[in-house]
Amino acid sequence: MNNNNQSVGVQSIKFSTPPYIQHYASVVGQKEGDGPLGSHFDIVEQDNMFGKNNWEEAESALQAKTVQFLLQKANLTPKDVRYAFAGDLLGQLMATSFGLESYNIPLFGLYGACSTMGEGLSLASMTVGGGYADKVLALASSHFASAEKTFRFPLGYGSQRKFCATYTVTGCGALIVGADSGIAKVTGITTGRIVDYGYKEKDNMGACMAPAAADTIYNNLNDFGVNPNHYDRIITGDLGYVGQTILIDILKTKGYDISGVHMDCGIEMFDKDTQDTNAGGSGCGCSASTLCGYILGQIEKKIWNRVLFVPTGALLSPVSANEGNSVPGIAHGVVIESV
Amino acid sequence: MNNNNQSVGVQSIKFSTPPYIQHYASVVGQKEGDGPLGSHFDIVEQDNMFGKNNWEEAESALQAKTVQFLLQKANLTPKDVRYAFAGDLLGQLMATSFGLESYNIPLFGLYGACSTMGEGLSLASMTVGGGYADKVLALASSHFASAEKTFRFPLGYGSQRKFCATYTVTGCGALIVGADSGIAKVTGITTGRIVDYGYKEKDNMGACMAPAAADTIYNNLNDFGVNPNHYDRIITGDLGYVGQTILIDILKTKGYDISGVHMDCGIEMFDKDTQDTNAGGSGCGCSASTLCGYILGQIEKKIWNRVLFVPTGALLSPVSANEGNSVPGIAHGVVIESV
Repeated sequence: MNNNNQSVGVQSIKFSTPPYIQHYASVVGQKEGDGPLGSHFDIVEQDNMFGKNNWEEAESALQAKTVQFLLQKANLTPKDVRYAFAGDLLGQLMATSFGLESYNIPLFGLYGACSTMGEGLSLASMTVGGGYADKVLALASSHFASAEKTFRFPLGYGSQRKFCATYTVTGCGALIVGADSGIAKVTGITTGRIVDYGYKEKDNMGACMAPAAADTIYNNLNDFGVNPNHYDRIITGDLGYVGQTILIDILKTKGYDISGVHMDCGIEMFDKDTQDTNAGGSGCGCSASTLCGYILGQIEKKIWNRVLFVPTGALLSPVSANEGNSVPGIAHGVVIESV
Repeated sequence: MNNNNQSVGVQSIKFSTPPYIQHYASVVGQKEGDGPLGSHFDIVEQDNMFGKNNWEEAESALQAKTVQFLLQKANLTPKDVRYAFAGDLLGQLMATSFGLESYNIPLFGLYGACSTMGEGLSLASMTVGGGYADKVLALASSHFASAEKTFRFPLGYGSQRKFCATYTVTGCGALIVGADSGIAKVTGITTGRIVDYGYKEKDNMGACMAPAAADTIYNNLNDFGVNPNHYDRIITGDLGYVGQTILIDILKTKGYDISGVHMDCGIEMFDKDTQDTNAGGSGCGCSASTLCGYILGQIEKKIWNRVLFVPTGALLSPVSANEGNSVPGIAHGVVIESV
């Protein structure tokens, strides 16, 4: 038994020897490329079909393209990568199954809704930190059109979107976690629990997820015995404007004011005034591409030295929502520091 | 960095200090209780609705009941369990989201189709073996009716099933992996890759999964440098009669004859002659309940001393299949030994 890796508090791990993020890559769609973070992404694809015949295949092609670019950037072959932790929002992870199959990397398929990049980065870090592997891939993706088809209405309906609704990001972020050295290190994780306030408004996912984000951030701060300003940024995945307000309010009632350091990938992704995205961006690919485009860049340049990255997931199934169930949330926290 | 945990060969881990399976529990439906393994399950529920109003909620209740019984058997509270690794077959893991939310255990949601119990047991073992936790839950479930609704036809259609089709098991298996001592130990894992022979017959999942099972078993034998008879049993999840034949044939062409030690949970679950289940049982819950009902019992009693447990998953999405795509497979191997 290796007891060097300390479990701390009620739901966190502090790595005795932190694993490193060694390489990262992001690919997004045209609308994301036109947004405020546009210049930070590696590739902005102009064809939202990614050269394929349907939206699901387009998302698979997005994943495959991101991994191809990541491996090229890292000068690695698929055989150098011991495991992949990956997922998407579609039923039975179909984007991942077809997106990664050509790489032949042993795969742990994950479903954490839009929290998947936090889940994958946590498990990749635990795998490297536990001495099980030297190079591990973590990846998550979403596509606006495949998500609308799965969760809402066919695009052709031209249905109106509520002001509280978010806009699913077409994007994929992928990174390599490894031992010994890298551009950033993962020093701790706080794994989320399912939090369900009974809220059923599936168009208002920010409200559904905010309590889970609050729970994970609260426990991170408590478990590590730190205050919000310990972090240069506390970065949620896709709460948007509505969820951000709720998150900050909940944490204030619990004794923490994160308003000075909070950032949300969904809010950063689009220009509210010109891009018609209502409450902000969302989807697995929102936090994943922001991490692997913008956030890790800021950490690599040491503009930020320590962030708490907290992708947030709404455990929304079209079937359970139509059956009248609530939309529970989950959020997975990862502490990333500069080197 | 802890290098005591050895990565061996191309895709396996040999645990330097093996984690233990400490407790296990299984709950199944009536048909499974009537089958050859009936007496090995902890609870045979007579109401396939599990007291709920729809099939998805029934599967959630099945999960909740299994965890409740497991914790009771183990004399544990949910707070004693550091992490849960869990999944099911439904879109966005809805059975798991609602099945486990009341337990408040930090959750890593998994999707590996019917291989999920192998994926969860692998990750739970890596988590304990890496010193990150003392008690970790691994769980997988399936329900005949929720699976038919998701992947095939509404039950009311009364559609005929092909002879090559399998019958989804209503069942859930759950176990606790922990440090120090237990009823069995996990000595190694072999993590599967996506294997896709391009086969598109979604009613013949045994054929879709057999190549993946063959790949994982082949690499397990090679990575550990052992022959099939090193194991008392090599146990696949739900290949059924069709998949078993293909698996044995593929491995013969690769130089291994496993026919003397192969067992398939799907074949064991039902009586072919009297239960009208065609090619056998299938689903996440097939291998999970067989593991946590029958297999671990055999190991605890030292009737078997070493088995290779290889749950097999068909990465079938109704959407991708309807779009004309193949059904890729994946299989995750776990070496379980008596103590």
